[in-house]
Amino acid sequence: MDKELKIGLFGFGVVGQGLYDIFTQTSFPAEIIKICVKTRNKPRPIAMDYFTFEKEDLLAHEDINLIVEMIDNAEEAYEIVKTALKRGKNVVTANKKMVAEHLPELISLQKGYGVALLYEASVCGSIPIIRNLAEYYDNEMLHSVSGIFNGSSNYILTKVIQEKMSYDAALKEAQDLGFAETDPTLDVGGFDPKYKLCIVTSHAYGVLIEPEEVFNYGIEKLSLHDAEYANEKDLKIKLLATVEKVSQNEISLFVMPYLIPHSHSLYHVEYEYNGVIVEGAFSEKQVFTGKGAGGHPTGSAVLSDISARRYNYKYEYKKTKWKSKFTVTNDKLMEVYIRYHDEKDLKLFKLQDVDIKYVGRNYNYVIATINLMDLISIRKELDKRNVFVANTGRLTPVLSQTDSEESQIVLSEAE
Amino acid sequence: MDKELKIGLFGFGVVGQGLYDIFTQTSFPAEIIKICVKTRNKPRPIAMDYFTFEKEDLLAHEDINLIVEMIDNAEEAYEIVKTALKRGKNVVTANKKMVAEHLPELISLQKGYGVALLYEASVCGSIPIIRNLAEYYDNEMLHSVSGIFNGSSNYILTKVIQEKMSYDAALKEAQDLGFAETDPTLDVGGFDPKYKLCIVTSHAYGVLIEPEEVFNYGIEKLSLHDAEYANEKDLKIKLLATVEKVSQNEISLFVMPYLIPHSHSLYHVEYEYNGVIVEGAFSEKQVFTGKGAGGHPTGSAVLSDISARRYNYKYEYKKTKWKSKFTVTNDKLMEVYIRYHDEKDLKLFKLQDVDIKYVGRNYNYVIATINLMDLISIRKELDKRNVFVANTGRLTPVLSQTDSEESQIVLSEAE
Repeated sequence: MDKELKIGLFGFGVVGQGLYDIFTQTSFPAEIIKICVKTRNKPRPIAMDYFTFEKEDLLAHEDINLIVEMIDNAEEAYEIVKTALKRGKNVVTANKKMVAEHLPELISLQKGYGVALLYEASVCGSIPIIRNLAEYYDNEMLHSVSGIFNGSSNYILTKVIQEKMSYDAALKEAQDLGFAETDPTLDVGGFDPKYKLCIVTSHAYGVLIEPEEVFNYGIEKLSLHDAEYANEKDLKIKLLATVEKVSQNEISLFVMPYLIPHSHSLYHVEYEYNGVIVEGAFSEKQVFTGKGAGGHPTGSAVLSDISARRYNYKYEYKKTKWKSKFTVTNDKLMEVYIRYHDEKDLKLFKLQDVDIKYVGRNYNYVIATINLMDLISIRKELDKRNVFVANTGRLTPVLSQTDSEESQIVLSEAE
Repeated sequence: MDKELKIGLFGFGVVGQGLYDIFTQTSFPAEIIKICVKTRNKPRPIAMDYFTFEKEDLLAHEDINLIVEMIDNAEEAYEIVKTALKRGKNVVTANKKMVAEHLPELISLQKGYGVALLYEASVCGSIPIIRNLAEYYDNEMLHSVSGIFNGSSNYILTKVIQEKMSYDAALKEAQDLGFAETDPTLDVGGFDPKYKLCIVTSHAYGVLIEPEEVFNYGIEKLSLHDAEYANEKDLKIKLLATVEKVSQNEISLFVMPYLIPHSHSLYHVEYEYNGVIVEGAFSEKQVFTGKGAGGHPTGSAVLSDISARRYNYKYEYKKTKWKSKFTVTNDKLMEVYIRYHDEKDLKLFKLQDVDIKYVGRNYNYVIATINLMDLISIRKELDKRNVFVANTGRLTPVLSQTDSEESQIVLSEAE
């Protein structure tokens, strides 16, 4: 059943180097044949024969049967992966942006050329969420998948809310520790978790959606006023990526900050840790936590994918084959906290029901109901105003309440 | 790739009934052919043609290619499973005692007859820990796997420590809610988590060990004094099952109560929830939590196993094939809290180093170091004395500290 894996590796950072060590120093049945890197004059810890600067040296290599792609640039990664799949080579990647933006094509290439693309490392580092959604929850009608998908912004939130550090200082620290993407907007603007959410949604609901169609609102406008509010109420602020079933045939997905209480399963997930809550009709609530950033956790996921290829494992995208398809809707009510300073800014929001309006010396806020659609319509304007919006999490779809009677009904209608 | 599953079901409780609903009301490609039950004159919610009282009607049925065994009695379950495997039928079971006590034989039967036995539901209800150990951490050198494996005792601990209920009242409540085993000693004596620990150890370290060789000490002696102590120190008491690497080639495994601080990953796992911490050289710390007891969570795991059989999934027991084997040692130091009332009882313990000795009006305790071996030698005596022992968790093997340098070394020696 085992087969010998001959690997062509793109990129030679911490993860690439770790893999090299494992394959040479243990009897793991895989061998790195060639490594393609970009920088020519960098000293390398292993023999220069291994290295090339031409991707064709890997992609056209007859012996190589598995491409492991570990480069930063999503466009280049896409070209490499596409070419590899078309030439009958299997691929393991960690590039969430690339996978999320090209998933329909990547699925059809896998099918057309009889090859596999695995990308566990692209979502939540070491947490095996894709494998579990693909294999373990493959017949489960899920109520929701929601989580902290970005270690860098969670690190910043922990520093600002619990340690009362300023946002800028916290961001700098996350960057110094190597948690943040080169362009921090990807993390703190909620783009990185959005890519991951799209990948998760394909496996959780069989729905393929373009990242640009999904609402993402990050933590860039977070201030110490918001930290003060959260601490006063014994709440934490977490940037959550969520996909949830809102009716029998509809799902909603979005990335935004949440104010979460002590009883929330992710309340204690701090710093660079990630956490995912999977709620199902049958399995009820499951929580997975683990390190979301760093070379080792990513390497762990990559190694698991490589190992799975020894057994010819591939994603089956089982839920995309379900008869009754889900459609995506943004017509969804949520309760939000809006911190603002100027009444003009508050007028921007099409609020449906105001529960609390607080006017203070230093800042004002409202707790009110709003439709996601209406939030989306002012998305661009939000970045220009001195406001911060967070979901209170107190309005959840009826379907996500897991009382057993209702679960039974959902189960019965599964397929 | 899909194949039609024809199921013979032993037992028709909540889980069995849920499965029946799913298979008849959805297009899940599985069909229940026959159901074997014990009680003859019980009204059944489905046609009586389905039922039989003779196990041979299932085991000898030509069309049945999968036996799903959901009965309580471990001896009977063993006979059924053994016969089924020998006749070339695959089996899904939830019976941890049966699996733990017969694992070497069950593995060799699977191999000899080319069939599969899956038992995800036997450990931690809905948490997919076996599948993840078998598939995802299959090449990972694990430092430790430790967790709350028993929902019933965790329910009691939550009630006694946080809600200050008496032990007897809490046990009664767990029984009324259906969390406890028919014989509560299995839960509160730490036997149930021990069976699960043996199963986990086979997949985590490739080591097959008889349950009776493993130390288990439960929460039967827990008193309100211990609850008072824990609450005073802002600690919680959790019954943990642990297997950990104590040297390059040795592991230790044991079940006992722990006093855990706020920072511990399982501090917030309450009531009937289970939680598992997997610490690896590469993946670092992962935590899985979910419901450990109840029909739905168990059903979810059983359904996943059934579904996996559509793809001919079987456990490969990959780590049992590693060249360098682990041996089990009980020569391991730990720091313990011992609550006692009579100095005679304290003399029983071969303490190596006493950190604190507290003598109070209502109870006394020591915090001291002891060797697991010495604890095992007085195991039977412990039940007769008015003492309660809990691990403080403050002495852990050097290997389980995940600093990256050390991880790298461990990884390099992986095989």
